[in-house]
Amino acid sequence: MSAQDPRRLAWAYLSTVAQGASRRLADAIAQHGPEAIADAVRDGTHGAGISRRTRARAHLDTAAADLEMVARLGGRLVTPDDAEWPAWQFLSFDALTGGADSDTGPLALWVLGNRPLDELFERAVAVVGTRAASGYGEHVTAEIAGDLAVDGWTVVSGAAFGVDAAAHRAALGVGGTTVAVLACGVDRAYPSAHTVMLRRIAEQGAVISEYPPGTTPARYRFLARNRLVAGVSSAVVVVEAGWRSGARNTASWARRLGRPVLAVPGPVTSAASQGCHRMIREGEATLVGNAREVVEAAGSIGVADDGDASWHRALDGLSGDMELVYEAFPAVGPSSVAELSESAGLDVDRVRAALPMLEMAGLVSRDDTGWSRRGAAPDEALGM
Amino acid sequence: MSAQDPRRLAWAYLSTVAQGASRRLADAIAQHGPEAIADAVRDGTHGAGISRRTRARAHLDTAAADLEMVARLGGRLVTPDDAEWPAWQFLSFDALTGGADSDTGPLALWVLGNRPLDELFERAVAVVGTRAASGYGEHVTAEIAGDLAVDGWTVVSGAAFGVDAAAHRAALGVGGTTVAVLACGVDRAYPSAHTVMLRRIAEQGAVISEYPPGTTPARYRFLARNRLVAGVSSAVVVVEAGWRSGARNTASWARRLGRPVLAVPGPVTSAASQGCHRMIREGEATLVGNAREVVEAAGSIGVADDGDASWHRALDGLSGDMELVYEAFPAVGPSSVAELSESAGLDVDRVRAALPMLEMAGLVSRDDTGWSRRGAAPDEALGM
Repeated sequence: MSAQDPRRLAWAYLSTVAQGASRRLADAIAQHGPEAIADAVRDGTHGAGISRRTRARAHLDTAAADLEMVARLGGRLVTPDDAEWPAWQFLSFDALTGGADSDTGPLALWVLGNRPLDELFERAVAVVGTRAASGYGEHVTAEIAGDLAVDGWTVVSGAAFGVDAAAHRAALGVGGTTVAVLACGVDRAYPSAHTVMLRRIAEQGAVISEYPPGTTPARYRFLARNRLVAGVSSAVVVVEAGWRSGARNTASWARRLGRPVLAVPGPVTSAASQGCHRMIREGEATLVGNAREVVEAAGSIGVADDGDASWHRALDGLSGDMELVYEAFPAVGPSSVAELSESAGLDVDRVRAALPMLEMAGLVSRDDTGWSRRGAAPDEALGM
Repeated sequence: MSAQDPRRLAWAYLSTVAQGASRRLADAIAQHGPEAIADAVRDGTHGAGISRRTRARAHLDTAAADLEMVARLGGRLVTPDDAEWPAWQFLSFDALTGGADSDTGPLALWVLGNRPLDELFERAVAVVGTRAASGYGEHVTAEIAGDLAVDGWTVVSGAAFGVDAAAHRAALGVGGTTVAVLACGVDRAYPSAHTVMLRRIAEQGAVISEYPPGTTPARYRFLARNRLVAGVSSAVVVVEAGWRSGARNTASWARRLGRPVLAVPGPVTSAASQGCHRMIREGEATLVGNAREVVEAAGSIGVADDGDASWHRALDGLSGDMELVYEAFPAVGPSSVAELSESAGLDVDRVRAALPMLEMAGLVSRDDTGWSRRGAAPDEALGM
């Protein structure tokens, strides 16, 4: 698919005008396709919720230039259309109730690096912590991240100074896989002192962002970035952190998403360990001391595992009818209840009962044309 | 009341023949009075349960001499008759179900020091840990124990090297109150390197033991001592400990007794912190980093906990007789069955029955000169 494919241009445009995740926009795109929604946003003919989100930037169509620039850097835009889209990792966002319109999975991801995202995040653990790491903290980060990478886990972090950088570097050092999630465009090296490190990360894994090229870091983008770090990982390890810290924000997202939160203790005399100690003390995190204990916790979630993570329980909770109806959908396009009934081999009443549950689980959506499956199918998760 | 008061002589005699706690004996004394039970033990006219416990030592009446010796050292025997008996602290033993006859409060306590026991234990916290403490461990012990003592808490510990000694010394250093619970008679300084420290502890608090003067330390006495450390304290803090350690045994007793168990984290790179980390990780202890957090927990005493008595189940595997016989062996050299009988406080037939089982377990061996213990006792595991 060329960079100038109209559908991909529409995704790139929508990523620029949305500037982050939007459940309403994602739902609309799932229903009507990116091109129709891009047109509606441009013309101001979309619904009120989307309007509020996109009005200010609707005139900025840099999609073609953005796609070209990222391609020149060796990157690409990955969307729910793509086979590599890690849909199953983002399912747990759909289970969230309440929260903001942006408390959801990414609309699309800008990526530097050659490996498919679904492969990178199949077994991924976030290793995060304070920028003001102690010597002890950097040492323990390197031990844990290095061992995880040797064991084949992707080490996810935020490319910041301190713990983040020690985690990326340890994974790079053992020839492992690591992913940096940025709060700015992937064309920006932030912090700039990590320019070379970020280049190596793209070579051995990926540098990703939900923001289009040219986006500069901002406070709310760091918070959104932390949510994405947790979202693509099967567990979050906090090595050293203050009580009010980005790492704790990432941990808090992991908890909301049903991911295990792990914290490394340290000397009680060290300020850098106070956040970890308090998280452990208050039951917000489980104490871990090494990669083995991290894997023990992270192994309980993930596509290759029968574990008991909440998203997986949610799928297990799909009644046989729900699963049959879900499987009855064509790959793309809407279906009527009658069509689904015939295809699933279930009578109409039972299809009617299953559909709202699938909708609540975020797996299907409805519009004037009928019911449609949302995004890519989480095939493995459904045992299909 | 003079040391030669007949009732007190009866208590001293019973303390000697019982060699530790006995629920059956305590119940009989509560019902019939110490003098009647002492007479019955001497004459062999008591019930079978008490008989088994006391028969081998019934002829050893050193009560008058013991009371005189302890009085010369500035000490006394404190019994449930005395107003200072900390009865309410021992109530939680009564709530224990199952377990051995000795899983109960002390029969009586031999005490060096002038302050009444009920006052000493009104606000008491145990601070325990490994003999092989790190510099960090001794530092944190001193901080926590010193702050607790300044705050008016009695610091209870076992007078061992490492964490125990650091806890006592910190309390002494701030002019606070500290109590050493010994696994031998209060006339013995164990370890002998702590002779001067124990003298200071008696001056600023108390040195206590449930064993009569002259009793030497033995494996089962250290385990019973750990139970008493937990029993007189409103919370137990483990500063540094291996996984199989006396401190963990004390912690396990605290859980059985419904006392909060607290553990101090340290560098995950430090072997001395591994026991603490595992206790926190497995939910056996709450992480604490300072005296304030200890006081927070100690103030909440009374919250019952079902605890986990795994170490106790393991010991239950050795029958009571086997354990008593095993511990009756001198450190080196052979013993005759008659010698083991007197030392263990078991009659000859029961010693003869226990020895082949100990032999099959690989714990003792026999040759022409008699029976000998094999290998060294795992001291660290006992908190000795």
